[in-house]
Amino acid sequence: MARGVTHVQPEDGLTTRQRRHRPLVAVHTGVGKGKSTAAFGLALRGWNQGWSIGVFQFVKSAKWRIGEQAALEALGRVHEETGEGGPIEWHKMGSGWSWSRKGGTEEDHAAQAAEGWAEIKRRLAAETHTVYVLDEFTYPVKWGWIDADDVVTTLTERPGYQHVIITGRDCDQRIIDVADLVTEMTKIKHPFDNGQPGQKGIEW
Amino acid sequence: MARGVTHVQPEDGLTTRQRRHRPLVAVHTGVGKGKSTAAFGLALRGWNQGWSIGVFQFVKSAKWRIGEQAALEALGRVHEETGEGGPIEWHKMGSGWSWSRKGGTEEDHAAQAAEGWAEIKRRLAAETHTVYVLDEFTYPVKWGWIDADDVVTTLTERPGYQHVIITGRDCDQRIIDVADLVTEMTKIKHPFDNGQPGQKGIEW
Repeated sequence: MARGVTHVQPEDGLTTRQRRHRPLVAVHTGVGKGKSTAAFGLALRGWNQGWSIGVFQFVKSAKWRIGEQAALEALGRVHEETGEGGPIEWHKMGSGWSWSRKGGTEEDHAAQAAEGWAEIKRRLAAETHTVYVLDEFTYPVKWGWIDADDVVTTLTERPGYQHVIITGRDCDQRIIDVADLVTEMTKIKHPFDNGQPGQKGIEW
Repeated sequence: MARGVTHVQPEDGLTTRQRRHRPLVAVHTGVGKGKSTAAFGLALRGWNQGWSIGVFQFVKSAKWRIGEQAALEALGRVHEETGEGGPIEWHKMGSGWSWSRKGGTEEDHAAQAAEGWAEIKRRLAAETHTVYVLDEFTYPVKWGWIDADDVVTTLTERPGYQHVIITGRDCDQRIIDVADLVTEMTKIKHPFDNGQPGQKGIEW
């Protein structure tokens, strides 16, 4: 079967064209590598479509994505300078959310996570971006800092054409239930098993 | 346990610094999404390190990666113009390998795949790149167009500091055996199941 071709005929009353332009909620979960990396790879595709990309990192150890951040921000500058691709914004909790002017000294992680989610809700309501990468978003949900039912309601009722990609281990089942695309990354073999530490260019 | 920290003490006589700079063979396999996307995400990290990136697509349907190709090639131009990041080359079998001047009319896929592998062997011997993405490389191996034992020998004996990332379903066990990092992407839920066709920005 050719890729991109489905033989299932859904009874949803939509044309193929309408279905082709349906926004998705994607979840990358599991204990293996590649959950976030694949999300940033999807951001490349969106950039090429000229879409607005918003990345929101829900972790404190912000150093771990510097490669992707630098590369995606470089693509954002390409867009600003040449009009090629789309705009890219990168916001990280670890250094204070960019839209909040409190700086990076806030120590209450739970409040920071809730603040990040509140901003994402505002942006979804305003249809600010076409692609939202909510990186390691599963953890603040797991820890009860963000209400999973609120996430489900917000995602299912979001207006317009907005893709949302959620990464992290142990995704809440309620979010999986409303997701369109769920992939589990499974570790088969990892260099840490043999005492290999993380290394630049590979882990960050 | 902090990420990047391992508590296993390997008995390989290497210092942590030496192990940290050990080149990896990574395999992204399984039937789920994200195998190639995560590989291109890794290319972002390598780009940010200033590494030379070589992408080699072993599939005919070259339209399926246009987003990543456009974005990575834009990053390659950023490098050429500003010195930021590293150089990126993108070669695809579907339109004739870039280094071969035969054009895109060659119909013998097996010969094309073998030609691509021969070029990769030359580049590994010459230490041309720091990161090699061999996209959907598992298929020509599975179909017998490229000899798995030759791949194993080439990978295990490659000189210098060169990371190799192999993507595709059904990776040959011999290659998995010599890989350092193997991740299986498993499909939990996919829009195709509900009759959703592939869409721009998501599938390509």
